[in-house]
Amino acid sequence: MTYSVVELIEAKRDGRRLDPDQIAWLIDAYTRGVVPDYQMSAMAMAIVWRGLDADELAAWTRAMLESGDVLDFSHIPAAKVDKHSTGGVGDKISIPLAPLVAACGVAVPMMSGRALGHTGGTLDKLESIPGFTTGLDKERFARILEQHGLVLAGQSETIAPADRKLYALRDATGTVPSIPLIASSIMSKKLAEGLDGLVLDVKTGSGAFMKDLEDSRRLAETMVGIGNSYGVRTVALITSMEQPLGNEVGNACEIRESIEVLNGGGPEDIRELTFALGEVMLELAGIEGGRERLQQAIDDGSALQKLIDVARAHGGDTSVIEDPSKLAVAPERAEVLAPADGFVTRCDAMTVGAVATRLGAGREKVDDRVDPGVGITVLKKIGDPVTEGEPLAVVRYSDPERWERQRPHLEQAWEIGPERVAPPRLIIERIG
Amino acid sequence: MTYSVVELIEAKRDGRRLDPDQIAWLIDAYTRGVVPDYQMSAMAMAIVWRGLDADELAAWTRAMLESGDVLDFSHIPAAKVDKHSTGGVGDKISIPLAPLVAACGVAVPMMSGRALGHTGGTLDKLESIPGFTTGLDKERFARILEQHGLVLAGQSETIAPADRKLYALRDATGTVPSIPLIASSIMSKKLAEGLDGLVLDVKTGSGAFMKDLEDSRRLAETMVGIGNSYGVRTVALITSMEQPLGNEVGNACEIRESIEVLNGGGPEDIRELTFALGEVMLELAGIEGGRERLQQAIDDGSALQKLIDVARAHGGDTSVIEDPSKLAVAPERAEVLAPADGFVTRCDAMTVGAVATRLGAGREKVDDRVDPGVGITVLKKIGDPVTEGEPLAVVRYSDPERWERQRPHLEQAWEIGPERVAPPRLIIERIG
Repeated sequence: MTYSVVELIEAKRDGRRLDPDQIAWLIDAYTRGVVPDYQMSAMAMAIVWRGLDADELAAWTRAMLESGDVLDFSHIPAAKVDKHSTGGVGDKISIPLAPLVAACGVAVPMMSGRALGHTGGTLDKLESIPGFTTGLDKERFARILEQHGLVLAGQSETIAPADRKLYALRDATGTVPSIPLIASSIMSKKLAEGLDGLVLDVKTGSGAFMKDLEDSRRLAETMVGIGNSYGVRTVALITSMEQPLGNEVGNACEIRESIEVLNGGGPEDIRELTFALGEVMLELAGIEGGRERLQQAIDDGSALQKLIDVARAHGGDTSVIEDPSKLAVAPERAEVLAPADGFVTRCDAMTVGAVATRLGAGREKVDDRVDPGVGITVLKKIGDPVTEGEPLAVVRYSDPERWERQRPHLEQAWEIGPERVAPPRLIIERIG
Repeated sequence: MTYSVVELIEAKRDGRRLDPDQIAWLIDAYTRGVVPDYQMSAMAMAIVWRGLDADELAAWTRAMLESGDVLDFSHIPAAKVDKHSTGGVGDKISIPLAPLVAACGVAVPMMSGRALGHTGGTLDKLESIPGFTTGLDKERFARILEQHGLVLAGQSETIAPADRKLYALRDATGTVPSIPLIASSIMSKKLAEGLDGLVLDVKTGSGAFMKDLEDSRRLAETMVGIGNSYGVRTVALITSMEQPLGNEVGNACEIRESIEVLNGGGPEDIRELTFALGEVMLELAGIEGGRERLQQAIDDGSALQKLIDVARAHGGDTSVIEDPSKLAVAPERAEVLAPADGFVTRCDAMTVGAVATRLGAGREKVDDRVDPGVGITVLKKIGDPVTEGEPLAVVRYSDPERWERQRPHLEQAWEIGPERVAPPRLIIERIG
């Protein structure tokens, strides 16, 4: 069956439903280059305008998913559960979380992304472990998962090529912010991983892609709906992204903070979110014990050992995990000082993330190189008392010129007021 | 100045205004191929969604207009006034109207279009006069206008190339039905003709592109606003397009009916609309006398003579104007008969136009060839009494197979009821 693309665009433009067959045809024809970019971008804008209902969305996601490889790990007896975050500043949660739940018996076939815009990327963070390879072929991906119950790789080119093509087009045509398009993009990749369960960390607030709680809730509900309709048990936590998560924002420094968590320490917010997501992953995997089971894997060292074993399997130099002081640190050091006595009332994640990116911790363009040693250590967060002249943050950088340009921006990230305000609640709600 | 196209698309998507400079840059960059189709189609869909306000629209139209030649006939002392119709079935009004007002002293530098979809095109109709050339270079166009006060040509490739490129893109991306985009497309071409005045025949009803009176009114007001803001006195008449205009739908047969009007005859609706538009054109040209002046130009034969003179200047065989029985007629003939006694309650312009097109009078695709002798003579229109078995229409066609496929469609065009209904009012309102 062939359809008239113009008629499909017109239908969506006028707010009518597309049939599953029409959607399957459209995505396939677009992936094969039969439908040109200029028609697909008009369709994407019509979807930004009119949306997709649940049936359309299920068909859209399935078509993107089926445009490439769908992995099958049914020969691995453990339940396969992954976690996805919509992206935040200082969000290194995957790095302590994945080995922690794997140490409890969950199989985690994790595919992550790279830094882009003001948010970091798990792959870039992992690559600050010298030798750690994230680009794996299917065979090596499966072998590491089979051996260790955990693999931490980049998304293969053969997963959801339709999404890859469509995402690049949306990025160039102002059609990114559509809840159904975002949800189907994320879920088409995750559902290709051959999962039994999936937990979604949907960020909300000024440092998140979704600034508004209502939008974040709709995105979470939409993704949970897609996952469940596809037979993958899916739960979302909506979590706050007003200020950076934890104290470290960068690459090597976020690995250091993650290792602290696996050693039983680390900042309270990182521990809280790691345990909350870990509990859901155990629940989805049908593993008893919850928080106590997770705590035990930290206390007995098995979680840290899992990270060491997996890093070695990825070719990484595990001595930096055993001695994190060996991780990269940029040569230059500066402090941002409190301009007055009082309490921190704002510590803006977006600003901290953007400055870290421009100092070299992330990417403004896809082909920028990441500097692993660059980072910002956030010492004071919302609600903390400060005295004038006390450091709010320590910055490690390589390029003094860049830092001089960024310093005034970073100084704007904090606001100091006379009254203590409560820090934002980290875990706002659970969906699914 | 260079802009980020993505930011311009995002602004329009989010309902924000674009600056005149941004619009001028966008249209120019698109015309030069710097902005690719896939970004412009997303922008076009965002405009279908969000619209353009009066300032944006003025800038958009000006940018398209200035993408090509702008004609200047200021050396011709007569006022230059043109007429544009948004397109209907049986709408041959330009053919009697242009020579009629030219005979009264208006200079008419008319550029017309070709048949597409269910509507005919003035150029195709004129070309059923053997030898009549509508593709003129700038010099010949000006010379005929100078000598005769009238020229009847196709739009030159050098007029508004931005519109030509954008229209083709809109046609392929479901972004045609946007009042500001339609209005700026029409007006960018008309305003390039170097006019003092312009009358617009904006069709409304089931056989028009705008089915809804409110939409037609908005389109008319939008175009009148653009014209006046550009210093061209512009008036629109909103006219009914429920049933075909006049009795003839085709090419040669519409020339025949036009000649009847110039000979003082012709169907009442064609006469009424020709005179109404002619009165506005005289008024815009500052020529006294109104309807009486027009009637005089018919009575003294000067209007018909003007058509003959201009047709000769275009290379046409004028003997067919003097003896219309020499115009082409397709070889085959069929009738559509009334299925019952009663009154015509519907005579659907869209159906009649679509059938005429499919029989060869128009184009379904841009490169279809038009058969000048094909036509439908509509004998019974809304309000007319009919008896069972009486002909509703006579069809002239060349291809019996095509006719057999179309016959059941054409039969559906009429509805016969027991009570007489009033024919729709032809001229609904004047704007400007």
